[in-house]
Amino acid sequence: MRIERDILSKNNDHAAANRVRLAKRRSFALNFVSSPGSGKTSLLARAIGDLKERFPIAVIEGDQQTSNDADRIRAAGAPAVQINTGKGCHLDAHMVAHGLDALKLEPGGLLFIENVGNLVCPAAFDLGEAHKVVVLSTTEGEDKPLKYPEMFAVSDLMLINKADLLPHLDFDVSQCIAHALKINPDLQALVVSAKTGEGLPAFYAWIEARAARWARANAPAAVAE
Amino acid sequence: MRIERDILSKNNDHAAANRVRLAKRRSFALNFVSSPGSGKTSLLARAIGDLKERFPIAVIEGDQQTSNDADRIRAAGAPAVQINTGKGCHLDAHMVAHGLDALKLEPGGLLFIENVGNLVCPAAFDLGEAHKVVVLSTTEGEDKPLKYPEMFAVSDLMLINKADLLPHLDFDVSQCIAHALKINPDLQALVVSAKTGEGLPAFYAWIEARAARWARANAPAAVAE
Repeated sequence: MRIERDILSKNNDHAAANRVRLAKRRSFALNFVSSPGSGKTSLLARAIGDLKERFPIAVIEGDQQTSNDADRIRAAGAPAVQINTGKGCHLDAHMVAHGLDALKLEPGGLLFIENVGNLVCPAAFDLGEAHKVVVLSTTEGEDKPLKYPEMFAVSDLMLINKADLLPHLDFDVSQCIAHALKINPDLQALVVSAKTGEGLPAFYAWIEARAARWARANAPAAVAE
Repeated sequence: MRIERDILSKNNDHAAANRVRLAKRRSFALNFVSSPGSGKTSLLARAIGDLKERFPIAVIEGDQQTSNDADRIRAAGAPAVQINTGKGCHLDAHMVAHGLDALKLEPGGLLFIENVGNLVCPAAFDLGEAHKVVVLSTTEGEDKPLKYPEMFAVSDLMLINKADLLPHLDFDVSQCIAHALKINPDLQALVVSAKTGEGLPAFYAWIEARAARWARANAPAAVAE
């Protein structure tokens, strides 16, 4: 318990430092969290293709092993650094600081951080992001917000991905959102498909609107650089 | 301009007094706003049927003329007062104060206020509610949040009603939400059908979660009564 507090306290110091660096570089960071296989990388690859004319985008990829995801992201047209956590089950803010060292972030751009596929541990680790975005796929069942409440409590947006599979599944979208709202009454929820593109205009509008507001709030930090 | 300021300032005084009365009576109030014909009354009648075992519910109905809507609400099982605004294009907080005089509100209950069908003027008038809920139906077109931005800016929840008609329409749900998020990055959006019941579990979960949080925040007022 004491050790856990020390680890989290150290992580929060690194997260605060990351947040200052990101504000100075006017880079709006989103931390994508989910179970393995929810389709985060496909979603980010598609978003990069659709948004790269509007925003410079860079990506930090977290996985226990392999650099497959960073390769897919680079193929989609964005610079990416892969962080392998080895036995670690989540990214921490110190790892992300090293990722920031390695990436050239353009002012006014987006930083997508794809966390390790894990619906538990990444909830406890602030990375310095503006928002956590939790991705839940329709194949996972609508009870996940009740079973893994921490993750839904700390996220500001829930993307229900793989909407294209809805006709073939028993997944109840409204019940899933109902469960999530019980945990987090402010949570925004959007139904999307990285495969067909369904629902992505609303996701992109959310990014643009939040990034614009974040930029206004963080303008003083940018000026103070 | 001067007159407009005076009217709004007086309205805000009445709204603040309503808010205190509602807190003392532990009554969670929602102000439903929309164009005419969006299906507000059907939605409220259905919600009353579905929620009346969980919450005592009372309704204030605003219309220029007739008491048809209050009759429909009473038939659904909730006490209702009808306020006819005559030439007035919106409810104001003073009218709602008279409505509160006429209604018996049970502690821990819900008060639904159905505003006059008008996507413009009701946006400017705080009635003392906890939240404005804007209802937009799929037959109205997805551009309405851009054309009537004030209403979407002051609302906390958007219900996209008449989802049952989506297969027969060109309405693009994601584009509609995208437009609304441009105006209000915090807006929550749910797709529902008062006719089929689709999407209502999430709407009810939103009400329950928000009412519970509101009750915690307003507990001191209740105790001080």
